[in-house]
Amino acid sequence: MSLTNATPLEVAQAARLGSRKLAVLSTKERNAALTAIHKALAEGKDEVLAANVKDLEAAEKAAADGKLSQSLVKRLDLGKKGKYEDMLQGILDVRDLEDPINKITARTLLDTDLTLERVTCPIGVLLIIFEARPEVIANISALALKSGNAAILKGGKESVFSFQAISRIISRALSTTAVPSDCLQLVETHDVIKDLLMLDQYIDLCIPRGGNKLVRTVKDNTAIPVLGHADGICCIYLRADCAVDMAVKVIVDAKCSYPAGCNAVEQLLVDEDALSTVLPAVATALLEKGVTLCCDEPSLSALKGKLDQHSIPLLQEATEEDYSTEFLDLKLAIKTIRPTPSSTSPNTELSPLETAITHINTHSSHHTDCILTTSASTAEAFIAGVDSSSVYWNTSTRMADGQRYGFGTEVGISTNKIHSRGPVGLDGLTIYKWVIRGNGQVSAEYGAGGKQWKHEKLAVGDEEWTARNEEEREALRKFREGKKAE
Amino acid sequence: MSLTNATPLEVAQAARLGSRKLAVLSTKERNAALTAIHKALAEGKDEVLAANVKDLEAAEKAAADGKLSQSLVKRLDLGKKGKYEDMLQGILDVRDLEDPINKITARTLLDTDLTLERVTCPIGVLLIIFEARPEVIANISALALKSGNAAILKGGKESVFSFQAISRIISRALSTTAVPSDCLQLVETHDVIKDLLMLDQYIDLCIPRGGNKLVRTVKDNTAIPVLGHADGICCIYLRADCAVDMAVKVIVDAKCSYPAGCNAVEQLLVDEDALSTVLPAVATALLEKGVTLCCDEPSLSALKGKLDQHSIPLLQEATEEDYSTEFLDLKLAIKTIRPTPSSTSPNTELSPLETAITHINTHSSHHTDCILTTSASTAEAFIAGVDSSSVYWNTSTRMADGQRYGFGTEVGISTNKIHSRGPVGLDGLTIYKWVIRGNGQVSAEYGAGGKQWKHEKLAVGDEEWTARNEEEREALRKFREGKKAE
Repeated sequence: MSLTNATPLEVAQAARLGSRKLAVLSTKERNAALTAIHKALAEGKDEVLAANVKDLEAAEKAAADGKLSQSLVKRLDLGKKGKYEDMLQGILDVRDLEDPINKITARTLLDTDLTLERVTCPIGVLLIIFEARPEVIANISALALKSGNAAILKGGKESVFSFQAISRIISRALSTTAVPSDCLQLVETHDVIKDLLMLDQYIDLCIPRGGNKLVRTVKDNTAIPVLGHADGICCIYLRADCAVDMAVKVIVDAKCSYPAGCNAVEQLLVDEDALSTVLPAVATALLEKGVTLCCDEPSLSALKGKLDQHSIPLLQEATEEDYSTEFLDLKLAIKTIRPTPSSTSPNTELSPLETAITHINTHSSHHTDCILTTSASTAEAFIAGVDSSSVYWNTSTRMADGQRYGFGTEVGISTNKIHSRGPVGLDGLTIYKWVIRGNGQVSAEYGAGGKQWKHEKLAVGDEEWTARNEEEREALRKFREGKKAE
Repeated sequence: MSLTNATPLEVAQAARLGSRKLAVLSTKERNAALTAIHKALAEGKDEVLAANVKDLEAAEKAAADGKLSQSLVKRLDLGKKGKYEDMLQGILDVRDLEDPINKITARTLLDTDLTLERVTCPIGVLLIIFEARPEVIANISALALKSGNAAILKGGKESVFSFQAISRIISRALSTTAVPSDCLQLVETHDVIKDLLMLDQYIDLCIPRGGNKLVRTVKDNTAIPVLGHADGICCIYLRADCAVDMAVKVIVDAKCSYPAGCNAVEQLLVDEDALSTVLPAVATALLEKGVTLCCDEPSLSALKGKLDQHSIPLLQEATEEDYSTEFLDLKLAIKTIRPTPSSTSPNTELSPLETAITHINTHSSHHTDCILTTSASTAEAFIAGVDSSSVYWNTSTRMADGQRYGFGTEVGISTNKIHSRGPVGLDGLTIYKWVIRGNGQVSAEYGAGGKQWKHEKLAVGDEEWTARNEEEREALRKFREGKKAE
């Protein structure tokens, strides 16, 4: 990890060269580097915490001057009970995941002695821009090295002393391993970001980890592909047939369990015939948690008649903007769903389900959207029709998370329409190459009048042990039944 | 397919709305639309060819004025024997491929009655910009509809009458099917491209199909992800242990079977000790085919002593630029590979293999590169070290092609580092969504002191019949041996 005064171009070129050396290291060598980083950071705890105190002092001063929020100051504190140990454990957790590279994911016999393979490999050089939390640097370094990628890291200025200490230690640790130190480059000044974003010939993927503003700025200023999401405007569509207790449980979790999360619900769409049946209990539960409800006219009228007078201050009239806003707060926009005229076919009407789907495809941020209903056919039509990275039936939008999906880790959540979508695990930091091994075959030999392609799909990994026909399935079925009976 | 005077914004919005209707159609409905398009274009052959004659007349005139090449005029001609029928057959070929969408590619049991699935789906709206050849519009329309994507199509101005006729017929055909006509939008004037490239909120992927200049212009002017390749600078690395006849066969195919192809070889890297053994026969064969050889000093000296005097005019001294040029012609740059000092570690030397890999990673366009050698260990080190979308051992770079890879069709060839790399089949026009079906589970129930995640991988499709443990493998093995013995 370099702490020199290198130019952005030098940083990117060094990372690129390093990335090619890293890409050919074995699983064992990459894992050994993570073990070494873990050990060095465990031993260097005092050094890091001393640096962290300097960041904290500066932050407290800035907070006292009103230039920084107290919640940000808290997030900077690496000395908080268990935080440093969690950071250390995270490195080992990533190390112990399955290696995402050098996996053969397809194999085709093109012709005798001519085999095509698709093999996963690292993307190359990542540019990762993140906000204050200092422990993120250890997590990101682990993810990058595990997946064989070099990374250029730019952290928030509030953690500069902590970053310096951590990167010094990581750099020392790497010098004892097969991973070149150039594979992790920390850049410290904010003004280099613009230059780095221009270097698309050396940097393959940019991952901004932070708020809406950071992501938008990055997207608008680079030709490098960007992985991430700007907004998390999630919707829940409540049908009248949903049981009241399930509606209350799911919507309260989606709004209140972590309102600042990108997967928190921001809009509740309610069928007209649920306004006076299911909605009042949902609203009551949310109001009890202190949630402000921004309602359209029909839902406001329905609720006003049903709720205690003391709840009324938290009931507001919604503005049009509320249906395009990520509140990140105890606030929820409510919209009534009625059949609407079709915008494309005159004299036809969209059903409530179609109206809700159209609203979501237009107003949500394509992150995570959910339907609450007992009807499987309605749910399946919703799942097919909604164009979002995660679409749920009868569960909370807060499920959208790499740990909850079972990935073991999370690189981020993507609302992109290519490469990786939804919670992104280590796989999202890989691509593949096509490999052909032959013995002198050439293209002109094949085709009309010449040799014919075999194009025979070959087994990959465990597929070798997949029953190939009904007879083999029957044999496997019988064996399984015999084992069960034993 | 609209032929109105809609603005770029209206075109993109209509395509987006259409795309959501198309995305939920069944395989049968999408295939029926392709059948209808095929039938209509077969019946409308006279109408299309009459329009094509108008394009040809204008092109002949432009060629006579020196404004257009004769080879371009030839490519415009849809009346050439078999060309129209090939175009029609191409539509049916795409129709009959496996449906790339609605495939479940992963399934996890998160908890009892809480299942996560990854399901393939269309990307959304494609913007496809292509050059003159008029039959491409039918091929692209078929690829887009088969994969459930709407497409905005912009063809070269030389084929305008042919495009209009084909799109009129496709539009009429679609009006009898479940696919909304808005899903295929033809734009006719060049000046709208710039506006369309700004509409990244409606257009999800841009595919420029044409030369280097088109691709670069598109990449430099849009925030929409671009799928494709600007250059095809492919390299072959010839080791001294390669048999002479194999070297001749592979290199002649790679250079001469279609020099204008992006997968034709442009650079031959030759180990020093192959200069006087393998290279002369290769050079003789290439010179006989009329290939100009741009040689560095050592290869030029080696060849001058060995070749007939009459070949000498085709031997040239290479310039530095030759090693960064896509010739697309009967021209090949030759470079001698010797050990070189390492740029990163002082007092160490790169081996010839490392030197060749470094040259390729710096000078090739990451499209397709090849090594010719009898040594498996050298070949595997080359395959691991070269950062290109296709890497070959002992076969021609011309193998890089979707048909040859067995995809049945080709969307294009990508040198991107994310999403799709190498020859791109229909899968490259898809992404996935994550679907969870639950019965009211919420995030706050899980974790410390609460419910535990199961995270059990469930079988997908044929995986159900994969032997799950060594006992089942043994049973399957025995059954297979028994069948063989029968």
